[in-house]
Amino acid sequence: MSKNRIEAFSDGVLAIIITIMVLELKVPDHAAQLSDLRPLLPVFLSYILSFAYVGIYWNNHHHLFHAMETTSGGIMWANLHLLFWLSLVPFVTGWMGENDFAPAPTALYGCVLLLAAMAYWTLQGAILRRHGSDSLLARAVGKDIKGKISPAIYLAGILCSFLSPWLAGAAYVLVALMWLVPDRRIEHALARTGLPGSRG
Amino acid sequence: MSKNRIEAFSDGVLAIIITIMVLELKVPDHAAQLSDLRPLLPVFLSYILSFAYVGIYWNNHHHLFHAMETTSGGIMWANLHLLFWLSLVPFVTGWMGENDFAPAPTALYGCVLLLAAMAYWTLQGAILRRHGSDSLLARAVGKDIKGKISPAIYLAGILCSFLSPWLAGAAYVLVALMWLVPDRRIEHALARTGLPGSRG
Amino acid sequence: MSKNRIEAFSDGVLAIIITIMVLELKVPDHAAQLSDLRPLLPVFLSYILSFAYVGIYWNNHHHLFHAMETTSGGIMWANLHLLFWLSLVPFVTGWMGENDFAPAPTALYGCVLLLAAMAYWTLQGAILRRHGSDSLLARAVGKDIKGKISPAIYLAGILCSFLSPWLAGAAYVLVALMWLVPDRRIEHALARTGLPGSRG
Amino acid sequence: MSKNRIEAFSDGVLAIIITIMVLELKVPDHAAQLSDLRPLLPVFLSYILSFAYVGIYWNNHHHLFHAMETTSGGIMWANLHLLFWLSLVPFVTGWMGENDFAPAPTALYGCVLLLAAMAYWTLQGAILRRHGSDSLLARAVGKDIKGKISPAIYLAGILCSFLSPWLAGAAYVLVALMWLVPDRRIEHALARTGLPGSRG
Repeated sequence: MSKNRIEAFSDGVLAIIITIMVLELKVPDHAAQLSDLRPLLPVFLSYILSFAYVGIYWNNHHHLFHAMETTSGGIMWANLHLLFWLSLVPFVTGWMGENDFAPAPTALYGCVLLLAAMAYWTLQGAILRRHGSDSLLARAVGKDIKGKISPAIYLAGILCSFLSPWLAGAAYVLVALMWLVPDRRIEHALARTGLPGSRG
Repeated sequence: MSKNRIEAFSDGVLAIIITIMVLELKVPDHAAQLSDLRPLLPVFLSYILSFAYVGIYWNNHHHLFHAMETTSGGIMWANLHLLFWLSLVPFVTGWMGENDFAPAPTALYGCVLLLAAMAYWTLQGAILRRHGSDSLLARAVGKDIKGKISPAIYLAGILCSFLSPWLAGAAYVLVALMWLVPDRRIEHALARTGLPGSRG
Repeated sequence: MSKNRIEAFSDGVLAIIITIMVLELKVPDHAAQLSDLRPLLPVFLSYILSFAYVGIYWNNHHHLFHAMETTSGGIMWANLHLLFWLSLVPFVTGWMGENDFAPAPTALYGCVLLLAAMAYWTLQGAILRRHGSDSLLARAVGKDIKGKISPAIYLAGILCSFLSPWLAGAAYVLVALMWLVPDRRIEHALARTGLPGSRG
Repeated sequence: MSKNRIEAFSDGVLAIIITIMVLELKVPDHAAQLSDLRPLLPVFLSYILSFAYVGIYWNNHHHLFHAMETTSGGIMWANLHLLFWLSLVPFVTGWMGENDFAPAPTALYGCVLLLAAMAYWTLQGAILRRHGSDSLLARAVGKDIKGKISPAIYLAGILCSFLSPWLAGAAYVLVALMWLVPDRRIEHALARTGLPGSRG
């Protein structure tokens, strides 16, 4: 019940974040050639990347909360903290896209990704502490190797931004691809228990 | 449970897409005559068409997920992929409307419809594979004739755009009308089983 | 189940409509005196009126669907049709407010209210037909006097717009006040049955 | 049921309010230096403050409705009244941020906070009246000291705005910090009853 409402609020915020980013794709006025869209290409590429990232966060959030059994005030605030950093994704996406992947915007994009990753890590930690190290959830999260590697790659991307923004972009794409491979750990741990909905 | 949250997220995204399109209807400043709205007419017509399309997708999505019994990581990503193409509808609607159905915007509008249709087809395929060819869902979807004809008409519309944008528009309207006739297949298959909610 | 998802989608759309209207209250740049807000006063007044109207529609929609037992494709489309007209409320609110209740925008505002009222009437009719004249819902809706008077007042308001926009505004306020008095009919009919949630 | 839909609608509105505020952080066009973001700093600071406030309202709303057992038309309208004042938060946040915490915008920001606090107080009162002074909810809310102190601090902040906007800002931050400490009253009262979800 309590959990359902946190999920509903998070779904709402994530749905709005993923959708208002498209408002940065500003319709060119009285410009009806395909070539008029060329300046929008970097904005569109950064839109795809950010859409994938918000989708990944929604997906991981979904799995984490699916396995969660109880909530607390601390978990609620850790969740809002994650949503705060994700709410900045449309801004940094627009800044990076409209400036054609210039160094500072590309670095700031990585910073927001890094801070969101740290917020997710805090949220996961708060949930794990509440469930104990023997819980199904703790076994499902396991060593969380992806979660530990991602911040390092973000950091490398941020530093690369001032040398080669495209290399930074490649780092961000790499992390996204790493996560797009569905995270089967929680699914598998749940499947073994035979809980309802455990196949999803 | 898992299914409910995918539905909730999809409902959120579709609700935002269908509503932010109206922001393209920009209020004319200090222009208070009805005639000041005349330039907005093509934007309004394209808004009606896109509203109908998003409504159709929501309706079909609703029926498809209503009959679905289990989810998977693949289904989640196929669903996000569909939402991605639909999230571009406000942009192409605005571009087409503000340029008075010029060839390139009208063709691009059709391309986004075509890609959304292919994404829906992929999603439906992923769900069907999970449920098996003997499932209620597979019998309900059946031969899916509308789903096979639509992409062909979109393609015809895209090609027509450069000859006569109005012909292309007529093609898009035709597909919308074809789908606005309520899809009774799934409703009927469900009704025969006497499942709860099967009348809807 | 099916009903829940129509409610969720409608809640999403109505929540977005009621909230994006505030975007018409454009922040005056580099103008930090209270007097700089004076030009926003008509926009703010029309915002209050439209917020009340969307709230009334949400409230009535809530009661209508609360008493509803089954859905159908027709009900879904009648619901989308209502949402379509309500989605135009932010546009006409902005146009009326930014032009200081000029005749044409004030008349158009009334037209959208009238069309939304007719769409609600159609939706209610579709639901009643499905439930039969003996149903709890039919008894609860009863003679629906408010629903029959409102369109007449809207029409009077639209005609007044060209004589005195303030008189038209008064007509719209009158209808809103008439509905703001909570509609106890459905609540009472439900309360008599002792259904769960029937006090709300 | 009835309660669930009020929660869903409120979650939707609060999710949109908290997210559209980020649209005030306007992407600087063709300005790709970190220093180009400096003018956005006051907008960003006011965004953080407002994000915290909307989060606090969502959190308190969540606890209040969690303990609520029945609804009524009056509660619904009291809830919409609260959402109305909160819907103005993005506007006053933008006005305060873009004018670098000038006196009038800072005072107006406090007024909206004060009116939202009074609307929350009205909503809480309407819910308490319906549940009676012996109810779990009444015991959980208790003396509501925070709720009584907050309006006084807002008022002090509003008056300070014309002397020192930064002092006013400090007052608003103080109230936010006071509420960010999780409100354990309702959690504890629920925990003692052993109700499901009572740990959250």
